[in-house]
Amino acid sequence: MYRTHDCGELRLSDSNTKVTLCGWVQKSRDKGFMVWIDLRDRYGITQLIFDEQRSSKELFNKAKSIGREFVIQVKGKIIERSSKNLNIPTGEIEILVSELNILNESKTPPFTIEDDSDGGEELKMKYRYLDIRRNPIKEKLIFRHKVSSEIRNYLTKLDFIDVETPYLIKSTPEGARDFVVPSRMNSGEFYALPQSPQTFKQLLMVGGLDRYFQIVKCFRDEDLRADRQPEFTQIDCEMSFVNQEDILNTFEGLTKHLLKTIKGLDIDKFPRITYDEAISKYGSDKPDIRFGMEFGELNSVSQHKDFNVFNSAELVVGISVPGGNTFTRKEIDKYVDWVKRPQIGALGMIYVRCNEDGTFKSSVDKFYDQKDLGNWAKITNANKGDLIFILSGDKNKVRTQLSALRLELAENLNLRNPEEFAPLWVTDFPLLEWDEESKKFHAMHHPFTSPKLDQIDLLESKPEEVKANAYDLVLNGNEIGGGSIRIHDKNIQSLMLKHLGFSDEQAKEQFGFLMNAFEYGAPPHGGIALGLDRLVAILDGQESIKDYIAFPKNNSGKDVMINAPSKLGDDQLDELSLGLRIKSHE
Amino acid sequence: MYRTHDCGELRLSDSNTKVTLCGWVQKSRDKGFMVWIDLRDRYGITQLIFDEQRSSKELFNKAKSIGREFVIQVKGKIIERSSKNLNIPTGEIEILVSELNILNESKTPPFTIEDDSDGGEELKMKYRYLDIRRNPIKEKLIFRHKVSSEIRNYLTKLDFIDVETPYLIKSTPEGARDFVVPSRMNSGEFYALPQSPQTFKQLLMVGGLDRYFQIVKCFRDEDLRADRQPEFTQIDCEMSFVNQEDILNTFEGLTKHLLKTIKGLDIDKFPRITYDEAISKYGSDKPDIRFGMEFGELNSVSQHKDFNVFNSAELVVGISVPGGNTFTRKEIDKYVDWVKRPQIGALGMIYVRCNEDGTFKSSVDKFYDQKDLGNWAKITNANKGDLIFILSGDKNKVRTQLSALRLELAENLNLRNPEEFAPLWVTDFPLLEWDEESKKFHAMHHPFTSPKLDQIDLLESKPEEVKANAYDLVLNGNEIGGGSIRIHDKNIQSLMLKHLGFSDEQAKEQFGFLMNAFEYGAPPHGGIALGLDRLVAILDGQESIKDYIAFPKNNSGKDVMINAPSKLGDDQLDELSLGLRIKSHE
Repeated sequence: MYRTHDCGELRLSDSNTKVTLCGWVQKSRDKGFMVWIDLRDRYGITQLIFDEQRSSKELFNKAKSIGREFVIQVKGKIIERSSKNLNIPTGEIEILVSELNILNESKTPPFTIEDDSDGGEELKMKYRYLDIRRNPIKEKLIFRHKVSSEIRNYLTKLDFIDVETPYLIKSTPEGARDFVVPSRMNSGEFYALPQSPQTFKQLLMVGGLDRYFQIVKCFRDEDLRADRQPEFTQIDCEMSFVNQEDILNTFEGLTKHLLKTIKGLDIDKFPRITYDEAISKYGSDKPDIRFGMEFGELNSVSQHKDFNVFNSAELVVGISVPGGNTFTRKEIDKYVDWVKRPQIGALGMIYVRCNEDGTFKSSVDKFYDQKDLGNWAKITNANKGDLIFILSGDKNKVRTQLSALRLELAENLNLRNPEEFAPLWVTDFPLLEWDEESKKFHAMHHPFTSPKLDQIDLLESKPEEVKANAYDLVLNGNEIGGGSIRIHDKNIQSLMLKHLGFSDEQAKEQFGFLMNAFEYGAPPHGGIALGLDRLVAILDGQESIKDYIAFPKNNSGKDVMINAPSKLGDDQLDELSLGLRIKSHE
Repeated sequence: MYRTHDCGELRLSDSNTKVTLCGWVQKSRDKGFMVWIDLRDRYGITQLIFDEQRSSKELFNKAKSIGREFVIQVKGKIIERSSKNLNIPTGEIEILVSELNILNESKTPPFTIEDDSDGGEELKMKYRYLDIRRNPIKEKLIFRHKVSSEIRNYLTKLDFIDVETPYLIKSTPEGARDFVVPSRMNSGEFYALPQSPQTFKQLLMVGGLDRYFQIVKCFRDEDLRADRQPEFTQIDCEMSFVNQEDILNTFEGLTKHLLKTIKGLDIDKFPRITYDEAISKYGSDKPDIRFGMEFGELNSVSQHKDFNVFNSAELVVGISVPGGNTFTRKEIDKYVDWVKRPQIGALGMIYVRCNEDGTFKSSVDKFYDQKDLGNWAKITNANKGDLIFILSGDKNKVRTQLSALRLELAENLNLRNPEEFAPLWVTDFPLLEWDEESKKFHAMHHPFTSPKLDQIDLLESKPEEVKANAYDLVLNGNEIGGGSIRIHDKNIQSLMLKHLGFSDEQAKEQFGFLMNAFEYGAPPHGGIALGLDRLVAILDGQESIKDYIAFPKNNSGKDVMINAPSKLGDDQLDELSLGLRIKSHE
């Protein structure tokens, strides 16, 4: 053992004990006749003291020579500090050092190892091993472990079995793009890395395992947006002999358990809302319900006058901004400009001030009287002192626009408190989704999702109206999980694949093994998958997932620390029977 | 909920309760006026009863119609069985069924879902989801979860942090062959799948995380032997500020904990043996010490007579077979033939019978007298009634041969009791290993392993003699883990890479990020990795790992169930800028 204690555990009651500590030099203060060093390890910081009187000359000079981030071992005696620091648990003591060993030297780090560091993003990624030394990153990695530990133990107690499914699987054209792995032993053939263990967990249910979970890496070769990683971690779960209600209750239980053990919060039953309701009330299938500002649809009370903008609109919809009547005209104009930015795309925005005296003042006073405006206030739940913003136009577009505005306003009004947690189930998702590009219906969740069985007849006539037994778990405006009851009947599965445009041959080629499995007694089953990276970030009150991943990739999918991906040697390519056709970027 | 109880929990004390059960039809017995069905789920089997008198006609006929592996739901009342089966926990009761719903039908499975099934290996792999329904496989997967759960909780209590390291990393030519993943976004470049998270865990130590673990999939593209999988699971661990002793104690603690909680066994301190000692005593660096049969080196007492076979041998070495004097001449000849098989490669074998009257009878009585043979018996620890087998020749070859014979004998003499557990630490492995093919030294463990620091001078003069701070954990003759103290000094790491034949440029290209990290205060650190697949199999008293993996690959690296690997579409290859150069197998 290089040490008897860590740098976070010594207290005044340990005084006079002889100890050996190891760690990194956080900083050193040299007062000439006295040197203090803050020694840091994962567990905390302990102050070391050297002075002319009590330290040997050799030791004293050695203490003066060491720099930041040197790794040292010290032996010494715990003494009471004269000037205590009550901000840290070890702040009442220091170590009077009698022996100092330099275990490793350090060059000056490219950025300071402090909570607020001076390094830019790219630099921190290149030296991620130094970034991890900083408390904010270190604490996030420890936090992640705590969350995943709680999840495993909770599910294990409920008889879920952790089963590892394979990483080298088969490529499927459905869904996102696969990462593939050439097979050397089977020349010309490829494995794919799993986008999720979906089919395997269903096969485990066919295999009778009854309850399965896995915390597992998944892979998607998609163009990366900020905060999307090519590899990500999923809490993957599946249960047999259950209906939707059982799954919602089980994973509501898990989420409550996390909120309780990790955040100390007791949350009552999670509210539920259908997809259609979420869209009409919030313009989003993952609404943030920490604050109100629900949409009020105004068609019936706004299309009876001569205002053509409203009269020609498919939807006229508004929200009340709490206390928004205090906005200046300039502030209001700023929001009008904000919704007109190309990213949002509104053509304009109407506002109504709800004065403290009960009167209204709007940008459309020319067309509407106080009674009209009063009706709008009623429908949008606006009170005296509030402000109503109204958008109009194509239903889908205008809802998306107003949803974006709603979040922007809430952000600016500090209504999105990261330490408040508002979970929500969104249910009854549409089964299919029209894709303009391919002019085909796609499975909104995935092709194994069960339609509402009483709506199967609609598959032929009105496929877009068929709802699925599919649900999302939303937390603070983020989708943290989604799942469905699966199809367990071979005929319904065939029907679904047909409606998704698979020929019999394609269906057999891609999903034959699953269809086959369904012939041998598949139980009713369903499940859910939660995104661990995001769940952990949100539980910790953060929006960005990157710092909860030890070694993340950048937006080009590169690990700049190890410099991956990289070129292969010709011999490696030969062994894999591969040739490169480098694209010329004209 | 489809059920109120599972099929394993009902007892006589639950009599008269109304229950709903779900599961698979294990078997059905039709006595004409009475039908019994064994209903199976993950948790057990419950007997259902239908009879002409108490069941409606419709229900009775339905019961008669259902076949094996149908998935059904039944409602009924718990009653006492007239003919009890005390071999199963539910054997005192049965369910008098009042309602029967067929949830899914089943074709006749390709093999029977029973403990001893009739299916061949290939068939079982193709229908793995049915194989998993069988108790032996199901129990093994549950057992694996139990072991991994215990490991996680034990290490978590010791302040180890579970950190997920990336799967898309950089290819290194050192060691085994990598699986690679073409990068679409970085045309012509490839990621590699990790053979182990070795460098990342070392970087986590440089990052100050102090104690790390992960249960993680690793990948090696090697020609597969029986019981070797292209993807396998590793319990990967690393600690800072420790020496070898600390690591051995920590993971001895883990192994003891597993033996205690999983097998109910208390094992005292694990014996330790150096690599050199293991080789000379057992001819193997992973000796099975559940039984004795240690090697006795006989050069000094066998090379003084006219027997040229021995006189010309580098090593003459024997083992005593306990009770082996009962072997017939034919049995002895069988072993002589066994060691002469090309797989073993001995030219011949000498035996000495130790008679009950204290005399000896050997196949070399022409050359050696009773005193000589007595000395041999002494050195091989042979007693009256035993038999001594002696091999001679080239030291390395003859040890390997005798080691194989030792295990074969122990197997035949039932000395390898799978329910007995004999862990062992093997320490002081050589740092380097000569590779005849490349005419180069390779790192025996890996290039980051620390040499014994007092032997660094020998690196130039006698590299083969330098020992490493490297150790293996051996259990019942299987290496279940291995690790080392790592180099944390940049200069020693450079020296090592130079001795392994890396040019400065290659070293920088391959390991630059690690060498760089070592410039910023790397702590002394070390670790270990245990093979989970094998550990679980051995703890469960089995040798083969395949059934502890839910979806294993066959010896050609294929998953015959999903038919992977498979061909890609041309569009997929185009996107990856790849071309195929199919080998013509002439």
